[in-house]
Amino acid sequence: MSDMSKVITCRAAIAWTSNAPLSIEEVEVDPPKAGEVRIKVISSGICGSDNHILDGTFKTPLPAILGHEGAGIVESIGEDVNSVKPGDKVLLIALPQCRKCDSCLHAKGNCCLKEDIFSPFGLMLDGTTRFTCKGRKVHNILGTSTFTEYTVMHEISVVKIDDDAPMENVCILACGFPTGYGAAVNAAQVTPGSTCVVFGLGGVGSAVVLGCKAAGASRIIGIDINERKFEKAKALGVTDCLNPQKFKKPIQQVIMEMTEFGADFTFEAIGTIDTMVAALESCNMSYGVCVIIGVAPAKSQLSFDPMKLLSGRTLKGSLIGEYKIRDDIPLLVDNYMKKKIDVDSMITHKLPFVKINKGFELLRSGKCIRCILLF
Amino acid sequence: MSDMSKVITCRAAIAWTSNAPLSIEEVEVDPPKAGEVRIKVISSGICGSDNHILDGTFKTPLPAILGHEGAGIVESIGEDVNSVKPGDKVLLIALPQCRKCDSCLHAKGNCCLKEDIFSPFGLMLDGTTRFTCKGRKVHNILGTSTFTEYTVMHEISVVKIDDDAPMENVCILACGFPTGYGAAVNAAQVTPGSTCVVFGLGGVGSAVVLGCKAAGASRIIGIDINERKFEKAKALGVTDCLNPQKFKKPIQQVIMEMTEFGADFTFEAIGTIDTMVAALESCNMSYGVCVIIGVAPAKSQLSFDPMKLLSGRTLKGSLIGEYKIRDDIPLLVDNYMKKKIDVDSMITHKLPFVKINKGFELLRSGKCIRCILLF
Repeated sequence: MSDMSKVITCRAAIAWTSNAPLSIEEVEVDPPKAGEVRIKVISSGICGSDNHILDGTFKTPLPAILGHEGAGIVESIGEDVNSVKPGDKVLLIALPQCRKCDSCLHAKGNCCLKEDIFSPFGLMLDGTTRFTCKGRKVHNILGTSTFTEYTVMHEISVVKIDDDAPMENVCILACGFPTGYGAAVNAAQVTPGSTCVVFGLGGVGSAVVLGCKAAGASRIIGIDINERKFEKAKALGVTDCLNPQKFKKPIQQVIMEMTEFGADFTFEAIGTIDTMVAALESCNMSYGVCVIIGVAPAKSQLSFDPMKLLSGRTLKGSLIGEYKIRDDIPLLVDNYMKKKIDVDSMITHKLPFVKINKGFELLRSGKCIRCILLF
Repeated sequence: MSDMSKVITCRAAIAWTSNAPLSIEEVEVDPPKAGEVRIKVISSGICGSDNHILDGTFKTPLPAILGHEGAGIVESIGEDVNSVKPGDKVLLIALPQCRKCDSCLHAKGNCCLKEDIFSPFGLMLDGTTRFTCKGRKVHNILGTSTFTEYTVMHEISVVKIDDDAPMENVCILACGFPTGYGAAVNAAQVTPGSTCVVFGLGGVGSAVVLGCKAAGASRIIGIDINERKFEKAKALGVTDCLNPQKFKKPIQQVIMEMTEFGADFTFEAIGTIDTMVAALESCNMSYGVCVIIGVAPAKSQLSFDPMKLLSGRTLKGSLIGEYKIRDDIPLLVDNYMKKKIDVDSMITHKLPFVKINKGFELLRSGKCIRCILLF
């Protein structure tokens, strides 16, 4: 128990302000309080949402330690923690599952009311932070913070996984993979033989493609303005790659002409209003389902003629693929280990943690699908 | 066959312009062409959408014979008509089921591509009309036109029903009842024990209430600015009636406080952007489903923060309650005749056809739920 009371000094990447590189600094990580877990981070993906925080489109308090897609090993636990113990392999996830709130208790709810996503405070539930750098308190991100050698999280956001899980790759099952894959298999419930359209062929979009393919879609149209992503997208299962900048007409019109009546299922994995409207208009007017996964800039408004819904379209959003994280993600990990789902093909780059800014450059350039940092 | 070639002269209510009373005139009704059916109208409901055409918010070419919720008897048929014959009792429905198009052939589609709803031409599929008044061609409405003693429709919009169906009441099964009832049982799939909110307690909203009740909802909150409707609404199954004008805060906030976490299912049966946004915001952020049934004014835009969807909400529209009309509505009629569904309680007024303007006054005043015209 003595270790549990110690402050750990380690390295972390600090976002002091938006629109600047991250800075590798020495930080102090406090011991976990009641209901909290301190974790040694082993690997972390770099997600588009981290980049949206850095470029200012997704607002969260700074300075902060970003990163919300991690895998690690439990170092110590606070009081009243029962679901994990030191030495356990775990995933670090941005959405909790408290198992007590209205949403957790509902069969179809996964947006736990303990979330810190929609109006992020960047603090633990008690209103404080476990991170200090140069004498200054540093915020966490979405209750996670994985761009650090050690982090502290609430037990309700920590998912125990199999002891044999490959820790260098499995972090992608903490956010990008389930967000995209679950959007296809849970939220949209893609049907065999269907036509799907995926807007955005980054990490999450690629996971949507894998979900559509697993559900038996016969045609998967991938949309991106960065044609570098097309070769990889085709390898994952995309049948037609389109660059909207190569067409004089709106991309929804191109898709309507390609599919004759519109797609069965469309997915927005970018986070702009224009692509959300395009995704809605690209699905069939009568039975089409459009799933929004991308995070739009703060305070933006999605606008469309409601007659587009009246004909029968369904528009929905989905968070972490509608998975209840502590119940469902361990099963995804098992299926990954049994090679039933192909996560590794999404991972295009691995870098040592200290090269994190290089990882963000790769993400912005569209040269990588998913870049994983190793600690 | 000789009767089939005759023009029928009869009375019809003509909408010469918007924002004026209808005018009872003598009209000539041409014989049915191939694939068409001429019908003696027995009864017709007056629907909010008819009123929206008259007040100019729903655009369709005038002059026209309105009315799209009818019951009648087949007078004659054109060539190649196989599903009905003279003497058959039928419902006259605004949405066809051609059984051949992409939407009709899809298990979940009911927005037949032969529809004349979304960009109405007010003409038969061959681009002509069967109505003439004072030497002038008169448009039809949504392929239906029931405010006339005789009308001509495409076979694909005519639903044969049981010979014993009570023709004075059953017209409501042609639009208002299935639109509302199906929105609850098909589109939303209301679950037992759930909380539902219905915006608008007119004819369609009342049918939503009946659908929620039939599906086992334990709480049904009804919203209307006309408190005259509250007594009837409670008799139909509404547990709480709210007049938004009686609150200083937005009605969605009132509902959120009443339900703690928002409703399971919300329904918009009015057709204004404000009530659509209120309905979306009134349903639970994680598992709530909002169904839009109301027809918004032409070219209006529904606008909201897409983060409201990302947490898991579903927003969808529904037309005639997702029923495939020729397959499904006869079964609804059977259930009505077996007293499994309570349609009669929605009918508050009956008037002779010539008093049609009085019927519209009743609708606008909120004094009636459904007024039926008898021919």
